[in-house]
Amino acid sequence: MPKDAEKMEKIVALCKRRGFIFQSSEIYGGINGFWDYGPLGVELKRNIKEAWWQDMVRNPPTGPDGREVQMVGVDCSIIMNPKVWVASGHATGFADPMVDCKTEGCKGRFRADQIAESQCPLKPSKCPGEHDKCQLTEARQFNLMFESHAGAIKDDANKVWLRPETAQGIFANFKNVCDSTRVKIPFGIAQVGKAFRNEINPRNYTFRSREFEQMEIEFFCHDRDAMKWWEWWRDVRINWYKSLGLAGENLKPRNQDDKELAHYSKACTDIEYYFPFADEPQELEGVAHRGCFDLTQHQQHSGKDMTYFDDETKERFLPTVIEPSAGADRSTLAFICEAYTVDPSRPSPELMKFHPRLAPIKAAVFPLVNKDGLPEIAEPLFREIRKRWPAQYDAKQSIGKRYARMDEAGTPYCFTVDGQTKQDGTVTVRDRDTGAQERMDKSRVVDFLNDKLS
Amino acid sequence: MPKDAEKMEKIVALCKRRGFIFQSSEIYGGINGFWDYGPLGVELKRNIKEAWWQDMVRNPPTGPDGREVQMVGVDCSIIMNPKVWVASGHATGFADPMVDCKTEGCKGRFRADQIAESQCPLKPSKCPGEHDKCQLTEARQFNLMFESHAGAIKDDANKVWLRPETAQGIFANFKNVCDSTRVKIPFGIAQVGKAFRNEINPRNYTFRSREFEQMEIEFFCHDRDAMKWWEWWRDVRINWYKSLGLAGENLKPRNQDDKELAHYSKACTDIEYYFPFADEPQELEGVAHRGCFDLTQHQQHSGKDMTYFDDETKERFLPTVIEPSAGADRSTLAFICEAYTVDPSRPSPELMKFHPRLAPIKAAVFPLVNKDGLPEIAEPLFREIRKRWPAQYDAKQSIGKRYARMDEAGTPYCFTVDGQTKQDGTVTVRDRDTGAQERMDKSRVVDFLNDKLS
Repeated sequence: MPKDAEKMEKIVALCKRRGFIFQSSEIYGGINGFWDYGPLGVELKRNIKEAWWQDMVRNPPTGPDGREVQMVGVDCSIIMNPKVWVASGHATGFADPMVDCKTEGCKGRFRADQIAESQCPLKPSKCPGEHDKCQLTEARQFNLMFESHAGAIKDDANKVWLRPETAQGIFANFKNVCDSTRVKIPFGIAQVGKAFRNEINPRNYTFRSREFEQMEIEFFCHDRDAMKWWEWWRDVRINWYKSLGLAGENLKPRNQDDKELAHYSKACTDIEYYFPFADEPQELEGVAHRGCFDLTQHQQHSGKDMTYFDDETKERFLPTVIEPSAGADRSTLAFICEAYTVDPSRPSPELMKFHPRLAPIKAAVFPLVNKDGLPEIAEPLFREIRKRWPAQYDAKQSIGKRYARMDEAGTPYCFTVDGQTKQDGTVTVRDRDTGAQERMDKSRVVDFLNDKLS
Repeated sequence: MPKDAEKMEKIVALCKRRGFIFQSSEIYGGINGFWDYGPLGVELKRNIKEAWWQDMVRNPPTGPDGREVQMVGVDCSIIMNPKVWVASGHATGFADPMVDCKTEGCKGRFRADQIAESQCPLKPSKCPGEHDKCQLTEARQFNLMFESHAGAIKDDANKVWLRPETAQGIFANFKNVCDSTRVKIPFGIAQVGKAFRNEINPRNYTFRSREFEQMEIEFFCHDRDAMKWWEWWRDVRINWYKSLGLAGENLKPRNQDDKELAHYSKACTDIEYYFPFADEPQELEGVAHRGCFDLTQHQQHSGKDMTYFDDETKERFLPTVIEPSAGADRSTLAFICEAYTVDPSRPSPELMKFHPRLAPIKAAVFPLVNKDGLPEIAEPLFREIRKRWPAQYDAKQSIGKRYARMDEAGTPYCFTVDGQTKQDGTVTVRDRDTGAQERMDKSRVVDFLNDKLS
């Protein structure tokens, strides 16, 4: 699919104008690779994370054998004992190759594998984008983990890292979870939380940022069942995106080939999405068979026994892990791009067709503008709705403008209280996607929304 | 109230045994000042944050003038442009006084104001806890913000801090929120998120940790209405804790006296709680009148106009801010301590009397142990419940042991499917707090829970 930079610019503009996404610290010129969610964005992202937690942890689909799937959650600290990152391999292996330029007036630092596209600080004056006049050092490895110190002294003993993924908090707690709950293998542990990567070149809006949020599952099973669970999770995760609106051709699951697979992995599907900012689909989530690599590493480095004893088969083994690892910000951006629709025939030419479960505002109530505005009917209706769902009350300007505002926010249902309401107690409900309106008794509004939103 | 160290030890033990709270990176010996939430803890803390968001942002109480209160949310990055922290005063003022010990073999670093209670590295061998033989330097200021670098080069230009509070992300976005939404003053902006403070002496379990989560509101109003709003927020926040279970004598709101107040503040109430680990009540939340200090600072440092223009009064002014700032981990710990109950007459002598809205598991389903275990009735009932609420199915061991497990987890309702269910379709429901049981038709279970849990 060809890149559509113009569409992407319009999406970015709408996201700022309507309060989905702001540049972090914008009043100070921003900071490269960091973003904030505004009033609509925070509700959208909350709904995405909440849908994931509800659908994957609290009420996961029935398993491949027709039985209930066991899932629990954890919420681990971002700063962990640094030995975790030695064991996981991040302390040494999580790096990009970097080169320095020794040219006077440049002294820039670049990713060696992206040198052709890199912006040189001397451009365009001295070094016309070719880097052929640059004096580049040999490439060396630059670790992507943010470094800090915990404790009063900034020495190596106090060095800590911000986690570059949430997965390791789960592995480190594998035994704690087994000991404190009644889960039996196969079972999964889920976590939602922030992670940090000091990307040399953050880019593509919120897609590749330095601070981001993950929704990760580590599913522990016996090795003989692992491929069955991997296939099941791959399909569950693809269907989850589809069920929430990524149902069109933009969603592209892609199996990694043998060359791409990590040495310990038997299979991995990247669930990718065609964003308007790129010619190629980009990864939203990886569903990876990780073998027993992670538990083996932690067993070696911690000296703690990570094996699992199966009461029924009397077998002791290191579980194999299936890891569906999703990006919450990437998903949010994909849902935004998919929802973005241009229709010049509408009150607002730009509208956001979010799935009702994800929509930041579920319903709006409009008292028709006239002498009294009918607030005595509209306000109690609004309060009834607001008790249950995020809702807005809007009494300003024409009905057309109010519809337009709600279309841009992606609000699926707008209720208008008009002259007829006073006579027969009915209100109109307007469907965002079709623009169609129908009348219903105002006592039916809560049931109508209950039905549409659940 | 006297400190009750023994009770605290039992609570900590239960929290680990049942998967509420684990030491972070425990398999590597932990890391001082960092904690993880286990399967029960993550659900409890999620419920607390969700109750706060629902009750304060999505559906806040009616305002002091009987009108709807306008609230929106944001979700800002943890790493912001460092100029934010210069403007807020944290870069220079957010510090504790530290002393170094120059004694050979010690070289320890201590908080100057806590030197008497500090653990000396030489103790007990050389320096018997008195510090009178120590060679201490003059006190100097140690900044509590975690420091890192964003970008490839570790120099001052790339220095960043992890936010020590979520409030400044809200202030930095004040104009963005005004420009992208239709809120009019008075209105509030809310945020839930992690913050970091490099405490020299983390202590009291999760109460004073280095990584923690805040639930903060900045409420913007005209200065002439500020005291009215401060009183309203103070009462709203006290009542919120009471409504979720902190209804007894342990909750202690305390007005700061003039000496304690920040120079820009006209009033502040600390909502404190008697934890078993301390003789004095400890702060869960501060409800502070902050004047227009923060917006003034950001206006000066960013050069951006932070004033608000009131369309109706044609007045332009810097809003005054009321800040209810709550600790999510501290609240979680208070709800745990309050819920913890010892009753030797019960199947489990220790039980957790969580408010049903906060309980990690809302309901459990027990098929009575007999030849067939009645799974053909119990499993569909469990699935019906699990669609809506976090629930557990437990078919192992005696009913008494199953009740005991659920009492410790704080599950308010347990449903047992027994021989009579097969005959007349009724199940028993047992109330956690009274232990009382009644029979109801199994078709009524969902409505019963709907009623009890909302």
